[in-house]
Amino acid sequence: MNFEVKILGCNSAIAQHGRHPTAQVFTINEKPFLIDCGEGTQMRMTDFKVKRFKIDQIFISHLHGDHYYGLVGLITTFNLLGRTNKLTIFSPTPLKQIIDLQLLAGGATLNYPLEFIATQANEIELIYENDFLSVHSFPLKHRVPTTGFLFKEKNKLRKINGEAIKPFSLDSNMFQNLREGNDIIDKLGNIVKYENVTYPPSPPRSYAYCSDTAYFPEIIPHIQGVDLLYHETTFMADAEKRAIETMHSTTINAANIANQANVKRMIIGHFSSKYIQLNDLLNETRSHFANANLAVEGETFRVERQN
Amino acid sequence: MNFEVKILGCNSAIAQHGRHPTAQVFTINEKPFLIDCGEGTQMRMTDFKVKRFKIDQIFISHLHGDHYYGLVGLITTFNLLGRTNKLTIFSPTPLKQIIDLQLLAGGATLNYPLEFIATQANEIELIYENDFLSVHSFPLKHRVPTTGFLFKEKNKLRKINGEAIKPFSLDSNMFQNLREGNDIIDKLGNIVKYENVTYPPSPPRSYAYCSDTAYFPEIIPHIQGVDLLYHETTFMADAEKRAIETMHSTTINAANIANQANVKRMIIGHFSSKYIQLNDLLNETRSHFANANLAVEGETFRVERQN
Repeated sequence: MNFEVKILGCNSAIAQHGRHPTAQVFTINEKPFLIDCGEGTQMRMTDFKVKRFKIDQIFISHLHGDHYYGLVGLITTFNLLGRTNKLTIFSPTPLKQIIDLQLLAGGATLNYPLEFIATQANEIELIYENDFLSVHSFPLKHRVPTTGFLFKEKNKLRKINGEAIKPFSLDSNMFQNLREGNDIIDKLGNIVKYENVTYPPSPPRSYAYCSDTAYFPEIIPHIQGVDLLYHETTFMADAEKRAIETMHSTTINAANIANQANVKRMIIGHFSSKYIQLNDLLNETRSHFANANLAVEGETFRVERQN
Repeated sequence: MNFEVKILGCNSAIAQHGRHPTAQVFTINEKPFLIDCGEGTQMRMTDFKVKRFKIDQIFISHLHGDHYYGLVGLITTFNLLGRTNKLTIFSPTPLKQIIDLQLLAGGATLNYPLEFIATQANEIELIYENDFLSVHSFPLKHRVPTTGFLFKEKNKLRKINGEAIKPFSLDSNMFQNLREGNDIIDKLGNIVKYENVTYPPSPPRSYAYCSDTAYFPEIIPHIQGVDLLYHETTFMADAEKRAIETMHSTTINAANIANQANVKRMIIGHFSSKYIQLNDLLNETRSHFANANLAVEGETFRVERQN
């Protein structure tokens, strides 16, 4: 069961130096979710062979153009290519109004259901879940209402202890019951205690996405201990004044958050176009939080299941 | 004084096969004008080193996304890069409403004046002129209100006959007066008749842009004799039924228009994504109108001044 993040766009504000505005694909169990959708995201999807038709949910952090100007084009392309599956978009208002107005002006009638679910930027909320994933939005601190997203694996099934299970005669339902943490009676009438024949489940994996935000320690409880954190680092530390003015973060801000939240690994991104090369941003981040990587377009960051 | 068209995007509907949605830059006398602005146009401008800050007028043919979804991003980028010059956008309504809503949602205040001028798709209109250019919009036939654009050089100045002018003693004002078609008295008191010392002006050059449109002979009077015509050829002739349904043109439709209007040269574009290679489209067009070329992204089509 894969758990990974592919970077489609890593730059802030405008496309420059071969970098593009923000977009990512988070995939769990072969199911992709799009996070933000800057202009040209659909072209990046083609470049990087993203299976865009499998995307049924899109999470938009906020309504600055570099995070959603590519959305209306993607919605239109889905329609032209014959999509019929429902598409759900989580975002601050008034995104529905913006998209509807453009579809109306173009005389477009979508051949698939398009649903908008409004996020709110004042408290953490469970906004989506399926059998193997929950997604929470949580407030960030920016110039317009903005949320981060926490993607957390649901992993309730215990693991079978092959040796301990040998004496028993089990059908698949019994296996499933044991994995769910229930004691059962096997086909021969033996009582089988789940604790004796299974290991605890693997720890659920988690990914937190934080772009755009000023330094905002209030997010720490929400992202505590995540396996992977994406945190914006628009600026180097020497541009802290500019970061504060624009409500963005520096490398050191992001590293401090990562340290305080005990995250295991961090991706940095949303780089200002003033930086042509990015190594200094990475080195400065790593000087405070070692396990950091640059968001490189086309690159995939995987979280492996433990034990 | 240059007169040329650079292709930024040549595909219809969606980006595919390395081709992008419609956008062109028409330049006269070093002054560029943007025609249509599909998603990713600002990235194409960077790729092809277009001097985007010199663009003060943008002409949008219609409100299908592949002709304008890149506009809001360009407007935002202009602002981020410190533009102060007024930008004027000619387009069908309700483009102003669409752009304003997005700027409002992003909390953006533009640092330059943004003006929208509504075009109308029921008759030819002079929508813009300066000292050396006039631009008319004229109706096309498509599923939503759509106009073509006719760019016509103003070239009123006559050309000096170097031999005939030799006996006279002239200052620069006198030269200018003669070029404007006025008789003058030279510094020695000689009467100089402009007809004796000048040739007529070069014929004004012209470019007509027609995308998107069904076969629509009503445009012929508007584009009669132009030096350069861009006419869409979304489909090959064998897909005429589909062309009629979607109100697009085939290669043969475009060639017929070019022939009837006696245009000198034609660029074809807005290719359906069903065509991976474009040579068949070109050959079929040329079988009916020889002086045709494919719109190739990054390529510039020049019209030289005659005599």
